[in-house]
Amino acid sequence: MKKGDKFQTDFIVDDEIYNGFIDLFKDKNPLHTDAAFAEAKGFKGPVMHGNILNGFLSFFIGECLPEKNVLIHSQEIKYLHPVYKNEKLRLVAEVENVSESVKVAELKFFFENHTNLKIAKGKINIGIDL
Amino acid sequence: MKKGDKFQTDFIVDDEIYNGFIDLFKDKNPLHTDAAFAEAKGFKGPVMHGNILNGFLSFFIGECLPEKNVLIHSQEIKYLHPVYKNEKLRLVAEVENVSESVKVAELKFFFENHTNLKIAKGKINIGIDL
Repeated sequence: MKKGDKFQTDFIVDDEIYNGFIDLFKDKNPLHTDAAFAEAKGFKGPVMHGNILNGFLSFFIGECLPEKNVLIHSQEIKYLHPVYKNEKLRLVAEVENVSESVKVAELKFFFENHTNLKIAKGKINIGIDL
Repeated sequence: MKKGDKFQTDFIVDDEIYNGFIDLFKDKNPLHTDAAFAEAKGFKGPVMHGNILNGFLSFFIGECLPEKNVLIHSQEIKYLHPVYKNEKLRLVAEVENVSESVKVAELKFFFENHTNLKIAKGKINIGIDL
């Protein structure tokens, strides 16, 4: 992995992911589960949990990089637009820096939807060659 | 919610959470799933996925605050120590700032284990009174 390397992975926030996240973490906040409540707040429907995207990032780091010998050190994410059920999302990530001496790689990423609207962006630092 | 308010919630990274996270997000990285691999890297066993903690944060924000009318705007987390299966974790959060004008609250948080070792810390900004 070297500076400038780019990766992308596609995801869908489908019923399996949405219901599975709620079953697992028990976050039934009405904004995520009550269509009438969400619409009264100006959304088009229930807003998908932002931390579903962090689950996708776990998969990306753990399974989609050229090496498996990695561990997340820190991460940050900013949610820019709501995500609704069944939206197709593309995660686009780029290596910003690799420090061989301290065995850390810094990546920046964003998620975009099918209209290329960036719905979230952030950074993630990982340990490499553990 | 006002500056200085403190909250705490307890979690356990049990089999249901660990297996459920893997089933949902498909992150089977060997550091998380292969005890021999993890031990060869100096860990006591498979390291729990850091993003399980972000799922706990989703529950905390969505379900444990005094009001339900909230939405995460951004969040950051730094992992300080590995978490192993069946560890009991306490999330401790404190409101750092509330801006009524822009309807945003800033919280800082940490997770500690049963020996009071801080295993992760971070910040989370939420929209309130949507």
